[in-house]
Amino acid sequence: MFVITSADNDKLKTIRKLQQKRWRNKLGLFTAEGEDLVGPNPVFLLRAGENVEPDLLDAVSTLGSGTRVIGVYEQKWAEPEGDLLVYLHRVEDPGNVGAIIRSAHALADATVVLGPSCADPYSPKAVRASMGSIFTHPPARAMLDALDGHKIALDANAQAELRDVGVTRPVVLVLGSERGELPQGLQSVRIPVHADSLNVAMAASVALYEVANRMAADG
Amino acid sequence: MFVITSADNDKLKTIRKLQQKRWRNKLGLFTAEGEDLVGPNPVFLLRAGENVEPDLLDAVSTLGSGTRVIGVYEQKWAEPEGDLLVYLHRVEDPGNVGAIIRSAHALADATVVLGPSCADPYSPKAVRASMGSIFTHPPARAMLDALDGHKIALDANAQAELRDVGVTRPVVLVLGSERGELPQGLQSVRIPVHADSLNVAMAASVALYEVANRMAADG
Repeated sequence: MFVITSADNDKLKTIRKLQQKRWRNKLGLFTAEGEDLVGPNPVFLLRAGENVEPDLLDAVSTLGSGTRVIGVYEQKWAEPEGDLLVYLHRVEDPGNVGAIIRSAHALADATVVLGPSCADPYSPKAVRASMGSIFTHPPARAMLDALDGHKIALDANAQAELRDVGVTRPVVLVLGSERGELPQGLQSVRIPVHADSLNVAMAASVALYEVANRMAADG
Repeated sequence: MFVITSADNDKLKTIRKLQQKRWRNKLGLFTAEGEDLVGPNPVFLLRAGENVEPDLLDAVSTLGSGTRVIGVYEQKWAEPEGDLLVYLHRVEDPGNVGAIIRSAHALADATVVLGPSCADPYSPKAVRASMGSIFTHPPARAMLDALDGHKIALDANAQAELRDVGVTRPVVLVLGSERGELPQGLQSVRIPVHADSLNVAMAASVALYEVANRMAADG
């Protein structure tokens, strides 16, 4: 097998480029690092000591030294369809975006729809936080107005509590960043809290659990 | 006001030391960085441009450049008491420990009890993830055997579902790391999932929400 021994190698250059959003968008690709994160059907896969010198792989890693494997994949985008969608409004932290993709998959098999100004779900941080769910349940992109369904916004200042509100399929759970504004004109509900605020990924998990349970009970 | 202009200053040296667990344990102190994280009653507080040169503060920051403020605080430890406790068994990721402290505070006003081999809740990463809850709701330390109450372990492989299980106060929710073993001999329940696994902080949030709701309904 050909072993990469030069940092000028095109595959290493591609991995380095893919650390930037601009290049991810341009090439339609992304990277996943580490044995527990690499998914099926890579465009190519580099393994330290097998087809690349370990130092060269470390040098293009976003995790730092000790990276054993980096895969490059095509970005996939789902259609914003299904009985339950999670719409993110300006959630700018990539760790939160990835974590919500993971929770939506685990708790409700739901697609996450990214509105404008969200973090790139294909950034290395988001991919890591999604823990493989980005492969099995890729996100969608849409404007909120383009989605049909019963739109319910999670809002710490709402009067109504999530568990007291009826849900009608299809449901669109709308979540914003922790301190940001939510879109106007939606039914808004809160999760009862004792303290200031929940992390948006935690709020998403609780809401997904509650709504998925309710929908399952309704049959 | 005295302005620190030397990296040899004792306060800067203390902050640097507190990046290490060994020194945090020895001094019983910890740091919080950033306007939204500094809490009340610091041992001392350094503000860029006020009492320390900005470059010197950046140099001791764990966040990198642009840090405006770092506070040093005394570690506090709660007693493992209350109607609802969250016991962490070998949760080694500091971000998860901090996030669970935040969620336990927000969703249930509950104390988090750290068993052996958990991440230090006073590490910079954990403090940041707790978003101030470490100040208002400090964690406790104990062995599981020392806790009284109805112990319920979250386990992805359990037969029973969390929502189907009766709870008797005081409740101790037991959570382990995502791939680790849980203590033996406990009642174990699962959160129904469609995919491999939930992040432990997400699982904690869902379980806290469910159990706190149930306890509130029981009066």
